[in-house]
Amino acid sequence: MEISNARLAGINVGAPAPIPSADCDFGLIGLAVMGQNLIMNVADHGFKVCAFNRTTAKVDRFLANEAKGNDNIVGAHSIQEFCSKLKRPRRIMLLVMAGKPVDDFIESLLPFLEEGDIVIDGGNSHFPDSNRRTQYLQGKGIRFVGSGVSGGEEGARYGPSIMPGGNEEAWPYIKDIFQSISAKSEDSDGKSQPCCDWVGDEGAGHFVKMVHNGIEYGDMQLICEAYDIMKRGLGLSNKEIGDVFAKWNTGVLDSFLIEITRDILYYNDNDGTPLVEKILDKAGQKGTGKWTAINALDLGMPVTLIGEAVFSRCLSALKDERTKASSILPGPTPKFEGDKATFVNDLEQALYASKIISYAQGFMLMQEAAKEYKWKLNKPSIALMWRGGCIIRSVFLKDITNAYTKNPDLENLLFDDFFLKAITTAQDGWRNVISKTALWGIPSPAFTTALSFYDGYRTKDLPANLLQAQRDYFGAHTFRIKPEFASETFPEGKDIHVNWTGRGGDVSASTYIA
Amino acid sequence: MEISNARLAGINVGAPAPIPSADCDFGLIGLAVMGQNLIMNVADHGFKVCAFNRTTAKVDRFLANEAKGNDNIVGAHSIQEFCSKLKRPRRIMLLVMAGKPVDDFIESLLPFLEEGDIVIDGGNSHFPDSNRRTQYLQGKGIRFVGSGVSGGEEGARYGPSIMPGGNEEAWPYIKDIFQSISAKSEDSDGKSQPCCDWVGDEGAGHFVKMVHNGIEYGDMQLICEAYDIMKRGLGLSNKEIGDVFAKWNTGVLDSFLIEITRDILYYNDNDGTPLVEKILDKAGQKGTGKWTAINALDLGMPVTLIGEAVFSRCLSALKDERTKASSILPGPTPKFEGDKATFVNDLEQALYASKIISYAQGFMLMQEAAKEYKWKLNKPSIALMWRGGCIIRSVFLKDITNAYTKNPDLENLLFDDFFLKAITTAQDGWRNVISKTALWGIPSPAFTTALSFYDGYRTKDLPANLLQAQRDYFGAHTFRIKPEFASETFPEGKDIHVNWTGRGGDVSASTYIA
Repeated sequence: MEISNARLAGINVGAPAPIPSADCDFGLIGLAVMGQNLIMNVADHGFKVCAFNRTTAKVDRFLANEAKGNDNIVGAHSIQEFCSKLKRPRRIMLLVMAGKPVDDFIESLLPFLEEGDIVIDGGNSHFPDSNRRTQYLQGKGIRFVGSGVSGGEEGARYGPSIMPGGNEEAWPYIKDIFQSISAKSEDSDGKSQPCCDWVGDEGAGHFVKMVHNGIEYGDMQLICEAYDIMKRGLGLSNKEIGDVFAKWNTGVLDSFLIEITRDILYYNDNDGTPLVEKILDKAGQKGTGKWTAINALDLGMPVTLIGEAVFSRCLSALKDERTKASSILPGPTPKFEGDKATFVNDLEQALYASKIISYAQGFMLMQEAAKEYKWKLNKPSIALMWRGGCIIRSVFLKDITNAYTKNPDLENLLFDDFFLKAITTAQDGWRNVISKTALWGIPSPAFTTALSFYDGYRTKDLPANLLQAQRDYFGAHTFRIKPEFASETFPEGKDIHVNWTGRGGDVSASTYIA
Repeated sequence: MEISNARLAGINVGAPAPIPSADCDFGLIGLAVMGQNLIMNVADHGFKVCAFNRTTAKVDRFLANEAKGNDNIVGAHSIQEFCSKLKRPRRIMLLVMAGKPVDDFIESLLPFLEEGDIVIDGGNSHFPDSNRRTQYLQGKGIRFVGSGVSGGEEGARYGPSIMPGGNEEAWPYIKDIFQSISAKSEDSDGKSQPCCDWVGDEGAGHFVKMVHNGIEYGDMQLICEAYDIMKRGLGLSNKEIGDVFAKWNTGVLDSFLIEITRDILYYNDNDGTPLVEKILDKAGQKGTGKWTAINALDLGMPVTLIGEAVFSRCLSALKDERTKASSILPGPTPKFEGDKATFVNDLEQALYASKIISYAQGFMLMQEAAKEYKWKLNKPSIALMWRGGCIIRSVFLKDITNAYTKNPDLENLLFDDFFLKAITTAQDGWRNVISKTALWGIPSPAFTTALSFYDGYRTKDLPANLLQAQRDYFGAHTFRIKPEFASETFPEGKDIHVNWTGRGGDVSASTYIA
């Protein structure tokens, strides 16, 4: 950052002189497929866009191919030229690799920016970086926006989910463009709404995108467990499992991920056998799920399902060790008895209930983050933003939108009537599936952690009383008394220590540290 | 750190002139109970110790009370005086709060240190800080040791478990003192050995202490789940549960934590009812469990049991929400049928098997850390160090010591004959318990995640093949082919992408990105 102050001298404050050639509504830096597609999308909606890329040959290639003949797209061959072509306040989006490249481009832009200009980071940045950048640029009179963009290449081209946060002063200037190009979805009144709204301050946009990705990890893990249980527990063929997902896609689980799972299971290789069975079972990851789990640990929120989903990917990566272990460590042979169709219905309920838990945990995390980082977060909008354009889009999110629209202060998704009823109906099947997979030896970490959370969350008195006694016993860490048992010896709200080695009888010693 | 270079000028290099009063073998800074007890312990073993504390009144108080008449203990009232009383190379241990206080004391010491002197941080520091401090002090000719010390106040006084790491040059100079004052335990040949050995480079000592604490979180959570299942599932009284723990403490689970759990369950309040039932079930934590889980996520190791143990403490802290949820969210009423004694045996096996998994995961993490951070770690020594003096001490650790002594390169604890046999015997009971708790509605997150890990680890083909297909479908993230299915179209070791929307038939498109 040392160079920034020197460069800062280049920023002109005060009334800008009009530049005749500055007729572009939007500028985009970074011409990988996502960037190109987003430019095409913006141009489609009547905005004039200027494209720039560090390797300028890419600008020429883009103008000569995808953008050919499109009057709404122009290019630039230097940062200076790029900035000179943008209307003020300039609206500049970076779609470059997260990390240092974002900081580097910000520094290269600064000498050519003027007070009030807007820099948008549309990449997969970690939210603390967006916190930092918002503050840094605010100090220079520049409005920074960190925006999650979800939906992949296809979404970028025809309507992504967009989650902007940062300096709220920027929002009126970018709202039109963002809401035009974003996916659309129905709100709780059936009205079409853009899957893009202002999320909150500083890194809130990238935070919400991070949680979105974490939830995506969870959804995918749940589907994988259902597939594994049908395959190894029920002995169904890929075609049959595909049929189940096809059916599930017409019910409460209707979603993009269930739909593509159906496609994948139906997809045969040249030899007529399912391609998916030939794919190496080592999961990759790009880190956003991990960030979510780490943030949950940092904020002390039990986001257990995403945690297990990330760890499951880690375990899958240990393929050689697992292969070795498979010939050493014994286990039962799954033996299904009963009606398969009934069990498949139970499995649907298990997946549905676990998914409810995962989203409930995700919203608990966002709620806590808002408190911790002092952000205002718009919960109904978040659910609506995820309804279209992005990987976790689903009918399910409509019910979440409804829940938070009805009660924006809803403490927990599980307290909403709809979800309360859903999980009440689902739980018998859910419990049945887990009791079976434990006996069959089929791992179902996400299903089971979801149930453990549900049963823990609805337990007034957890065994943490014993844990606190242990901590006091060996480390004098003290404990508190349950209000209903408060007494003169053990007053409420005081840190109490007792000498536990007095066994089997009365209190031998007690003190409290006020 | 800016001041350090100025102060560095104060370091004298070259042959030190003898100072007549420099007759102390050891210096300790920080006179809280842990520090005082450690000094008494060192003095008991014939070493002369100099005590110092920032608030020097504490030095006088200590000399006038606990240390009164002890010729092996002297005090100092300034850092300079403190350093002047120590034989060279000086051996100085800091027992102050982790974080900035450690750095501050290092800076205050530097002007009075000479090349080759040894600074030991015996607090609960985060291992990356110890990495940094080792390197920083090495650059100044000072040998830094970051040492985990476990066993609480009692351990410090009569024999803690000590886990030193850092600059290995320091080890010959501190080995005698450390191994004299540490707890002792039997090695695999039945010979008494100190629960202290050199752990490894840089922050390795604090790393191993961190994993120790994470494992402690896991052990405590497992015991809490067993207690909850006996209480709510079997309807046993605290006395009866205490009897079970008393019995377990004579078998494979024999350990300090099981022993104190027995004591706690037997401990009655003045009114003759068990005190533990009156303790508020909100678990506290000091962060080392969280560090372990975060490190596991960072290194990509599935240390799921510690993760769930940390999240369980987080969930317990949400007492108000849980109390509300308990009146809203429905669940089954546990109904036990069958022989309680048999079920209690199953429960013992569930706890034992889960514990094996937890330690296997912990050693997986340490193994990966050694690889990642380029440390040499002495695995048989680590197990031996944990055998005495510390919270997780147990008979069980003797079997781990044996396993790693027999084969220091053991890939996974589960591959050791003893543990393989143990988990083979345990698994029926373990599976039975989990299938029941799922139906009863009693949360058992640690038991279940352990089983999911076991079943996942021994699975050659996990459903991550489907996950990779999904990632390739929506994000073109590519996949690889299982070697046994490699072909010309899909060669082994290549990143492959297909167009998944060609449904139900042959391959419609495929490319691979070499």
